[in-house]
Amino acid sequence: MSENTSKSLKKWGNFSEWFDDMLLEAQIADDRYPVKGFSVYRGWGYSIVKRIYQMLEEKLEDEGHQPMQFPVVIPEDAFQVEEDHIKGFSAEVFWITHAGENELDRRLLLRPTSETAIYPMFRIWIRSHADLPLRMHQTCNVYRYETKATRPLFRGREFLWNEAHTAHADYEEAERQVKTGVEIYRHVYDALGLSYILLKRPDFDKFPGAVYSLAFDTWNPDGKVNQIGTVHELGENFAKVFQLTYEDEEGTQKLAHTTCYGMGMGRTLAATIAHHGDDNGLVLPPVVAPKQVVIVPIPFKGKEKEVVSYAREIESKLKTAGIRVVMDDDDRLRPGEKYYKWEMFGVPVRVEVGPREADARSVTLVRRDTKEKTVARFEDLVGAIRGLFGDIYENLRTRSWERLDNELVEADTLDELKSKMNDRRIVRVSWCGDPHCAFEIKDQVAGEVRGTLWKKEEKPIGPCVVCGDTASEVAYVSRTY
Amino acid sequence: MSENTSKSLKKWGNFSEWFDDMLLEAQIADDRYPVKGFSVYRGWGYSIVKRIYQMLEEKLEDEGHQPMQFPVVIPEDAFQVEEDHIKGFSAEVFWITHAGENELDRRLLLRPTSETAIYPMFRIWIRSHADLPLRMHQTCNVYRYETKATRPLFRGREFLWNEAHTAHADYEEAERQVKTGVEIYRHVYDALGLSYILLKRPDFDKFPGAVYSLAFDTWNPDGKVNQIGTVHELGENFAKVFQLTYEDEEGTQKLAHTTCYGMGMGRTLAATIAHHGDDNGLVLPPVVAPKQVVIVPIPFKGKEKEVVSYAREIESKLKTAGIRVVMDDDDRLRPGEKYYKWEMFGVPVRVEVGPREADARSVTLVRRDTKEKTVARFEDLVGAIRGLFGDIYENLRTRSWERLDNELVEADTLDELKSKMNDRRIVRVSWCGDPHCAFEIKDQVAGEVRGTLWKKEEKPIGPCVVCGDTASEVAYVSRTY
Repeated sequence: MSENTSKSLKKWGNFSEWFDDMLLEAQIADDRYPVKGFSVYRGWGYSIVKRIYQMLEEKLEDEGHQPMQFPVVIPEDAFQVEEDHIKGFSAEVFWITHAGENELDRRLLLRPTSETAIYPMFRIWIRSHADLPLRMHQTCNVYRYETKATRPLFRGREFLWNEAHTAHADYEEAERQVKTGVEIYRHVYDALGLSYILLKRPDFDKFPGAVYSLAFDTWNPDGKVNQIGTVHELGENFAKVFQLTYEDEEGTQKLAHTTCYGMGMGRTLAATIAHHGDDNGLVLPPVVAPKQVVIVPIPFKGKEKEVVSYAREIESKLKTAGIRVVMDDDDRLRPGEKYYKWEMFGVPVRVEVGPREADARSVTLVRRDTKEKTVARFEDLVGAIRGLFGDIYENLRTRSWERLDNELVEADTLDELKSKMNDRRIVRVSWCGDPHCAFEIKDQVAGEVRGTLWKKEEKPIGPCVVCGDTASEVAYVSRTY
Repeated sequence: MSENTSKSLKKWGNFSEWFDDMLLEAQIADDRYPVKGFSVYRGWGYSIVKRIYQMLEEKLEDEGHQPMQFPVVIPEDAFQVEEDHIKGFSAEVFWITHAGENELDRRLLLRPTSETAIYPMFRIWIRSHADLPLRMHQTCNVYRYETKATRPLFRGREFLWNEAHTAHADYEEAERQVKTGVEIYRHVYDALGLSYILLKRPDFDKFPGAVYSLAFDTWNPDGKVNQIGTVHELGENFAKVFQLTYEDEEGTQKLAHTTCYGMGMGRTLAATIAHHGDDNGLVLPPVVAPKQVVIVPIPFKGKEKEVVSYAREIESKLKTAGIRVVMDDDDRLRPGEKYYKWEMFGVPVRVEVGPREADARSVTLVRRDTKEKTVARFEDLVGAIRGLFGDIYENLRTRSWERLDNELVEADTLDELKSKMNDRRIVRVSWCGDPHCAFEIKDQVAGEVRGTLWKKEEKPIGPCVVCGDTASEVAYVSRTY
C-alpha cells in the first residue's frame, strides 16, 4: 500500500479514475511495464484470476474437455490457410523474424487465437468417428497489436484467456456443443454474480471464419459494454481448409464440424471489479476472494494478551474449516487503517476482536458489501461466516442484475436513441437487419449494434429505427470497449 | 490410442525409442507441430503437468510468494542492462520486429527468463524496508532458440516452467531464501518420488549474472543427467544494474539483494516418466495421476447387469471419497485390451469386477507398479486403495533412490572416468577446482563437471584426476541433456 494516496474514489461519477485507482491500490495490475499495451498482473489480482481459471477449467474438464497446451508461435503458412481469418487478424499480429543472430527462414507469429495452431494437429489426431467428439481447452495468453487505446484488463496487446476447441461428426452435434459452451460460461459468470446479455452478433461482426458468433456482453459503470466471452459455431469452414476429415461408420470420409469459445480473463476480472466494487474499494464474491476473512484484533491496554490469543483461536478455527483467512496483527497500523486497507482489497468479511469479544467469547462480523455488523458466538462462528458468504453473493448478484435491468432502455427514433446513447444506456431498437442501417447507427449516434438475443425471439415494436422499413429483429445498441 | 502399434518397449535397452513411444501412446506430448522445437502438450500429459504446478504453486504461496504474471515480451534496452546476462542469452532469443504491417521502433524479445522483465517493476514497487522481502512467482513459458538437437520435454524452444523472484534487505536474508527455495523444490520432487543430487554448479556454468547457482540433477535411463530445477543467489548483481534500492530504518538508501529459482515442468515430467515407467508404459505417482483408479467390469453372459451395477456402486463410492476414478465400460474393447491401455497410461490401481466379486461384494485390486493383486471387501475399499497409493508411492520413491545410488560411482584416473562415462554412470572424481581441468574432462571423456555437493563437504580421495595437483573438491561428472 505504499502507493496509497488520499483520493476521492467515485465509481459512478468518474469510472475511469476509480478503476485506475483500484488496479493500483488493490494491487490488481500495473501498466507501468515499459512496453505499451502490456501490463503486469500483481499478486492480489492474479490470485483472483487463478480462482476464476480454476472454476472454469474444472467445469470444462467435467464437460469432457482435455486440458492441453499449444505453442505460442504459429508459422505464417498455417496462419494463411483460412481467408476470412487472415483478413480478420493479419493487421494485428506480432511477427518474429529473427532468433539470435539469424533471420528465420519462415516468419512466425504470436497466436492472436489458436485455430490455425490447433487444426493441423486435430487433422493428425482425428482419423475415424471413434476419435470424435474431440474437445480440448487451454489456458494461455494471446497477442493482438491493438491500435485502439489500450487499457489494463479491458484492452491490452497481451491478454489472458482460456480457449476451447471442439470437433464433431455433424452440425447437430456441433450445435449441441455451442449450447454446452454457453452453459459452461454461464456457470462461471453466475458464480461471480455477474449479469450479462447473451447476444448473437450481427454477421458483419462475427468471428473471422465463423458461421455465427455468440457473445456475453455486460454493463460497465461508464456506459460502455464489456464483452467477457464468446462462443462460435464454425460449421465446416475451418474443417474444409484444414482438411479435417474422418471415416464414418460406413467407411465414408466426411468433414468434421467445429466450434470454439473463449473467455477473456482480464475482462471477466474487470467486470467483477466494476460490478461489485464501491467507493471504498473492491467488493469480492467470496468464491474468488484470495482472503475471505480478515481478523483485526483491537487490543486495549492491559488486555493485549487475551485479545491476541483469542484472535489466534479464531484464526485457527477458520483455517481448519477451510476458510481463507488473514490475521492483520501489524503493529504499525491502527485498527481504522486496517479496516480501510482490507476494504480496499474487498475482503468479504471482517472479524473484529476486542476485549469485550474476548470476554464474552463472541465476535463482531462486518460484511464488506453492506457494512452491516452482526455478533456471533465463537461456537457458531463458521456457520455464521458461511451464511454471510451466501448472503453477500446473493446481494452482489441481485444488485448486478438489477443494474442491468436499469441500464436497458428502448428507443423508437434515431433522436431518442442518440439521447439515450448520450445517457450511456444499452438501448433496444427495432431493426430491419440490414448492415447499412447498423452502420448508419454507428455514424449518427456513436453506438454499435451488438446483436440480437440468442434463442429468445423478441418482437420489434415498430419499423426499423433507421430506414423505417419493416423490422425483423430487436437490436441491442451500445458504446463498447 | 489410434496411433497404437505393436512395439517392443524397452526402457533400459533403448530409452530414446521407449520415451518417444510413451509420449505418443500415453498422449503426453506431440512434436509433429509444424515449427521445429515446439511441441504440443496433450490431454494426459498436461493433466499431470497441472497437478505438479498446483503442488508447487501451493507450496510457494504458503512460503509467502505472491502469484503474478509478467508480459512475455521484454524490450531490447531493458534486456541489455546486465552484461553477463546478455552474453549468456543473446544468442538464443527470439526477436519480434514487426506488428501488422509496421516495423516496431524498438525490437522486443520473448523472455528466455524474466529477470529483465521483473526488475524494472521491482524498482517501482520497492521503496522502503517495509516493502521487503518481496517474493513472487509465475507459471509461464519461456523461449530459447536452442541450437542443440531438440527433444520434447527435455529440450524445446518453448518450455513450461515456474520461476520465483525475491528481493531482500541483505545478503543473509537472501541466503536464507536460497535455502527456502531449495526446500520448496525438494518438497515437490519428493512428492513425485524423484531422486536427485543437489549440486553447486562450477562458476563457469552458473546462471548468467548469478553469484552462484544450485541445481537439482537427476538420473535418466540413458545415462545422461537431467537438470530439473535451479536456485540462484544473485547477490547485488542485478540490484546494482537495475538500481534496486530501498530506504532502511535509519533513512539510508541501500541496495537490495535478490534470488531467483526456476523449475522446468517438461523436464520434471520427463523425470517422472523416466524414473517410474516400465516396459508396459507409464507408472504414475498417485498424487499426480489424472485418474488414480480404473474400474474394469468383466461381464459374464447372463451376469452383465449385476456386474455393471456393482461396478457403478464402486465408482460412486470412490468418487465420494475424492478419488479420481474412471470406469471403462467401452463395449468395443475386451478386458485384456483395457488392462493394456490403462497400464500404458500409468493409472496406479486397477479394480477388476466380475460376477464373483459382485456376488461376494469384494473387489480385486491390481497395483500398476508391481502388478500385485489383492482382494478387498466393499466396506474396506477406500481404505484399501488409499493404502495401496501409499505403498506405490513408497515403492517408486525407494526404487528411484536405489537407482541413483547404483548410478553413482567413483573414478581415480581419467581412463577409469572415461570407461565409466562410457558405461553412462554419474562419476565422482577428485578435482583441483581449476576450470581448465573441467574443460579437459569434457574434451577427453565427453562428460561434464556438473559441480560439487551443496552444503555437504566431501573429502577428495586423491589428487585432481586431470592435473594431479592437490584436489580441493569432489566433482560430479556426467553426460547431460
